[in-house]
Amino acid sequence: MHRTHTCGELRAANIGQTVTLAGWVQRTRKMGGMSFIDLRDRYGITQIVTDEASSKELNDQVAKLGREYVIKVTGEVCERQSKNPKIPTGDIEIKMTGITILNEAQTPPFTIEDESDGGEELRSKYRYLDLRRAPLKRALELRHRMAHEVRNYLDEQGFLEIETPYLIKSTPEGARDFVVPSRMNPGQFYALPQSPQTFKQLLMVAGYDRYFQIVRCFRDEDLRADRQPEFTQIDCEMSFVEQEDVLNVFEGMMRTLFKKVLNVDIPNPMPRMSWYDAMDFYGSDKPDIRFGMKINDLTSDLKGHGFSVFDSVEYVGGIVVEGASEYTRKQLDELTEWVKRPQVGAKGLVYVKVNTDGTIKSSIDKFYSPEELKAVADKCGAKVGDLMLILCGAKRKAQTMLGVLRVEMGNRLGLRDPHTFAPLWVVDFPLLEWDDETNRFYAMHHPFTAPKPEHMDLFYSNKKEDLERVCANAYDFVLNGTELGGGSIRIHNADVQERMFEVLGISKEDADYKFGFIINAFKFGAPPHGGLAFGFDRVCALFGGQETIRDYIAFPKNNQGRDVMLDSPSKIDDVQMDELFLKSTYVEK
Amino acid sequence: MHRTHTCGELRAANIGQTVTLAGWVQRTRKMGGMSFIDLRDRYGITQIVTDEASSKELNDQVAKLGREYVIKVTGEVCERQSKNPKIPTGDIEIKMTGITILNEAQTPPFTIEDESDGGEELRSKYRYLDLRRAPLKRALELRHRMAHEVRNYLDEQGFLEIETPYLIKSTPEGARDFVVPSRMNPGQFYALPQSPQTFKQLLMVAGYDRYFQIVRCFRDEDLRADRQPEFTQIDCEMSFVEQEDVLNVFEGMMRTLFKKVLNVDIPNPMPRMSWYDAMDFYGSDKPDIRFGMKINDLTSDLKGHGFSVFDSVEYVGGIVVEGASEYTRKQLDELTEWVKRPQVGAKGLVYVKVNTDGTIKSSIDKFYSPEELKAVADKCGAKVGDLMLILCGAKRKAQTMLGVLRVEMGNRLGLRDPHTFAPLWVVDFPLLEWDDETNRFYAMHHPFTAPKPEHMDLFYSNKKEDLERVCANAYDFVLNGTELGGGSIRIHNADVQERMFEVLGISKEDADYKFGFIINAFKFGAPPHGGLAFGFDRVCALFGGQETIRDYIAFPKNNQGRDVMLDSPSKIDDVQMDELFLKSTYVEK
Repeated sequence: MHRTHTCGELRAANIGQTVTLAGWVQRTRKMGGMSFIDLRDRYGITQIVTDEASSKELNDQVAKLGREYVIKVTGEVCERQSKNPKIPTGDIEIKMTGITILNEAQTPPFTIEDESDGGEELRSKYRYLDLRRAPLKRALELRHRMAHEVRNYLDEQGFLEIETPYLIKSTPEGARDFVVPSRMNPGQFYALPQSPQTFKQLLMVAGYDRYFQIVRCFRDEDLRADRQPEFTQIDCEMSFVEQEDVLNVFEGMMRTLFKKVLNVDIPNPMPRMSWYDAMDFYGSDKPDIRFGMKINDLTSDLKGHGFSVFDSVEYVGGIVVEGASEYTRKQLDELTEWVKRPQVGAKGLVYVKVNTDGTIKSSIDKFYSPEELKAVADKCGAKVGDLMLILCGAKRKAQTMLGVLRVEMGNRLGLRDPHTFAPLWVVDFPLLEWDDETNRFYAMHHPFTAPKPEHMDLFYSNKKEDLERVCANAYDFVLNGTELGGGSIRIHNADVQERMFEVLGISKEDADYKFGFIINAFKFGAPPHGGLAFGFDRVCALFGGQETIRDYIAFPKNNQGRDVMLDSPSKIDDVQMDELFLKSTYVEK
Repeated sequence: MHRTHTCGELRAANIGQTVTLAGWVQRTRKMGGMSFIDLRDRYGITQIVTDEASSKELNDQVAKLGREYVIKVTGEVCERQSKNPKIPTGDIEIKMTGITILNEAQTPPFTIEDESDGGEELRSKYRYLDLRRAPLKRALELRHRMAHEVRNYLDEQGFLEIETPYLIKSTPEGARDFVVPSRMNPGQFYALPQSPQTFKQLLMVAGYDRYFQIVRCFRDEDLRADRQPEFTQIDCEMSFVEQEDVLNVFEGMMRTLFKKVLNVDIPNPMPRMSWYDAMDFYGSDKPDIRFGMKINDLTSDLKGHGFSVFDSVEYVGGIVVEGASEYTRKQLDELTEWVKRPQVGAKGLVYVKVNTDGTIKSSIDKFYSPEELKAVADKCGAKVGDLMLILCGAKRKAQTMLGVLRVEMGNRLGLRDPHTFAPLWVVDFPLLEWDDETNRFYAMHHPFTAPKPEHMDLFYSNKKEDLERVCANAYDFVLNGTELGGGSIRIHNADVQERMFEVLGISKEDADYKFGFIINAFKFGAPPHGGLAFGFDRVCALFGGQETIRDYIAFPKNNQGRDVMLDSPSKIDDVQMDELFLKSTYVEK
């Protein structure tokens, strides 16, 4: 071993000991006849000193050191004259008696500090240097701790981690598969799994009644910001359970993680909200309940007063922004422009101010009396000094816009502290979603989600409006306005599964080709089962108080799906193309 | 929850309780007016009974049940009249008061018993049914337990599990890569990792001084028996270490696994053997040391006596098979044929019997006096009643043949009990292997393995014989004649790494193209580091006392790399091919 201790380990109690440390030179400085080295490793920073009395050889060696040199230092632990209370090793320093340069280092292209001077592109290219920075180190340490606690909890609950294959069958449903040409089976391809969904259901059929896996998944989607082509899931499934059992086990898991990793207590039981309430009151299926500002349905209050904008729509709703009645004309205009951006899509914004002098001021004064507006304000709980913001349109669309506006106002008012945690189960999702464009139903979760038993009659109806009313025992775990996981009780009956494919407009032939093995498996004694999956990258990021997942992945890809460090993907040579019986038809521009 | 208890849980202490169990019907039988159901789940089997006094409805339901039906049963726990000491629940039975058929089952195509009547192909197709059998369930439970203990141990030792990417860069070195066409980067491919080797070294450069990962790896090789295109590795790397440190940590890991999973104590310290001794005495770089039967070098004893077969070769060696002097002519002929098969490749087999009457009988009596043969027997420790088997040829080749023969004789003599465990470190491997065919050196481990510091001069020599003498601080973990893992101290210096590529005949341009990022990384302060990887599938199989890994993988592929359950790989549709800018050139026959 090239060291006796790490750079984060030594304390006053070690004074007098002779130790050897190894690590990277964070910085060196000379003060008079003394030289100082800040030596860094994964565990911390320790100060190394030489003085004039030290041998010329030692001082010469120190003079040679550059940033990020790797050195090994031997010396005596001494009490520091000017202690540094900011670091755990700040009481001591090492009076150096020997030094070995283990490796030199070119000057890194950006500073290895908490806040680096390097741009994202540059830091990505030298990811191995970026990973030396403390915030990334903390992120990966957190991730390790999270994975370990997840495994401990699920193991204690009797779950088995079972590895499922990565080279599977392509089933073009949902997102695009990444495919892998098979050399031994020419002309044929494996697919990389978008999730182990079918395998975990087969494991239930096989009797492994508590399965989990922390597993990589792959989706060849056009990458939006903060999406990765490969991502990690905590994937779970249980047999002989109902929704309540699944929620209890995984509420327990999240509670354990919050407690063990962050020492945070979350409400017990965790709040639950139906999908319908989430949409009606938060305009989102993943409400951020760190703050109130609920949406109020004002349709019956504001329609029919001669204001044609409201009279012509299905729905009018509003939120109350506390203490914002002093918003200026300019601020309100800016907000109006903000909601009119295509990302939100509103046609305009109506406001009602409850001024501090008790009067009401609104952009729709012409159409409503002060008493009418006061009644609306009272209904919504708007107090003196508050501002109401009102949007209208088709019901779910208008609610969604209000939901976006609500989050924006939450941000502007500082109500969304990333270190405050408000978890929530959203339950009772509709089973199906109608798409006007393709004129068919899509599964809201996925085609293996079961209708609620009490909705089975509706599920076998051929009326669109009946099918729209079918609900599922499906559930999402939402934290601070982000969906971290979701799942459902599954179909375990071959007939119901076939009906599902029928409702989704998947032909029997197609269903057989793509999902034949699972429909078949259901015929040999499938138990009732259900489960869920968490997006592990995002769980880690939110626990770390961050919005983006990139820092929680050791080697992420950029928005073009490229690894700029590896310069990958890249061309492969013709021999390999020939072996795979493949030809590229791409013509470079 | 569809149950109050599992089928493996109830004991005499539960007598009198009303319980609900759920599971699969293992079998039903009628005896007089009574019906019995053996109900099975992951945890065990519980006997359910009805009698004539039970309602007609109940008895009618029971009459409907077929094998593998999924049912839920309520009843009272009663003491069993004829107890079954073979199963943990054998003291009790459930007197059924209610039953629900949760799902019917078609008759499975093979029996779900410890020994099934189904052939391998059939069981593979219905893997989800095969997985219901107890031996497979035990295998997957063992695997879960192993992985969990590995993680606990390494976490306690300060290792971080860090996930590395699966979509990486193709580096056609060693085995073939599986590749993944990129739709967003047309004409370009990712590769699936053969191992996270370069990533773990980059993590060392990044300062994560104790890394591990239980990780899937991929190799597109022609599949020999018991090889899988995807397999799982316990992958580890450490910084600021020397060989001794790595061996200590992972010897500790294996010791912990043996103790915690099997309650087996392995020698402390574990035996070590140099690669040279392994070859000389066992004819294998992965000796099975559960038994002796070492190889004896008889070259100087048997050459030069006028027996032209021996006189014309480099090496003569033999093993002593204890108590086998009574082998008949027929047995010896069969053995001779056995060593002449191409898998062994010997030209013939010489025997020397030390008969129970003290006389010597040999196939080379003509060329050697009884005294000479007696001297050879004495030198090898052959006692009265023993049989010596002698092969000759080029030294390493003959030793390898003797090694294969030794293992075969070990099998025949029953010296290779799979539940006896003899772990071993093989150390001091040569760095390089000369290949006559391609007229170049290959890395014995891989091109990142460092020469021993004391052999650095030889490493920079241009003489073939010098380079052949260079050793590495490389090590293999061997258990019962199987290599379960291996690793080395790595090169951490860019110049040495470039020299390595030069020795391997990889041009600078090629090295830069394929490994540029790691050579570059070494220029920014790489610490001394080393590590190893274990083949996790095989570790599990050997712990389970099995030779083949298939039962320790939930969904394995067959020898053609096919998943016969999924019928994968398979064709993908033209739209997807077009999106990937790919055309298949394969013409079906």
